[in-house]
Amino acid sequence: MQGLFMRIVRGEIAAHKVTENDLALAFLDIFPLVPGHTLVIPKVEVDSIYDLGEAHYRAVWEMTRQIAPAIKTAFPCIKVGIAVIGLEVPHAHIHLVPLQHVSDLNFARPKLKPDSAELEKNAALIRSHLQGWDV
Amino acid sequence: MQGLFMRIVRGEIAAHKVTENDLALAFLDIFPLVPGHTLVIPKVEVDSIYDLGEAHYRAVWEMTRQIAPAIKTAFPCIKVGIAVIGLEVPHAHIHLVPLQHVSDLNFARPKLKPDSAELEKNAALIRSHLQGWDV
Repeated sequence: MQGLFMRIVRGEIAAHKVTENDLALAFLDIFPLVPGHTLVIPKVEVDSIYDLGEAHYRAVWEMTRQIAPAIKTAFPCIKVGIAVIGLEVPHAHIHLVPLQHVSDLNFARPKLKPDSAELEKNAALIRSHLQGWDV
Repeated sequence: MQGLFMRIVRGEIAAHKVTENDLALAFLDIFPLVPGHTLVIPKVEVDSIYDLGEAHYRAVWEMTRQIAPAIKTAFPCIKVGIAVIGLEVPHAHIHLVPLQHVSDLNFARPKLKPDSAELEKNAALIRSHLQGWDV
């Protein structure tokens, strides 16, 4: 899946965007563990998150912090969990997952397969709770 | 487990430390998913990582980036995964877990129970690869 996320960044592939700025982009995972499962990526193709330059590294963690409360409001949960795994797509990405139970963050279990309309509805719901945020 | 991590910060409870500075502390999880499983915590008791002040929030993510390569060298793996869950201890903490497979980051599975000598050996091994780092 080399280049997949850069094609999303460039707008060549549609994505259900939550927010973006010059350095980072957040959009819904199309195979979520639970509804509201969001990805935050840097707008540069670097495999390991630890190898990002300082600006991109800070940007993805700041965007994570900015959108997590909106995800939590849109998809009520105990916590919005974070996972960075990176064994598949060679473009660093942060998973944000609304958690009711620790097993909600188990990536070995089967994923959901919502249709495009449901994903867009969910992205719009999160975005609606970002209004007023400076992102 | 209210206050547990602050007791570690204050040195009232021993921990197998990897590194620390004024804002953050890294030490081995005593119930690791795999050997080398490390926690990074802010030196302030805040439940949700998203509620940390900017200095502590940046500090834990910078420490994460500083120690991940040392963990990877000490415990060879494909990636050092990140997880933030926070359903148990009410003190924000980042799990760093050497990953060979996505299931290595499944917190619902049984944990290891290494003895104190093994944990200290593992912490020392990670620390040995931090030499020269400005942490």
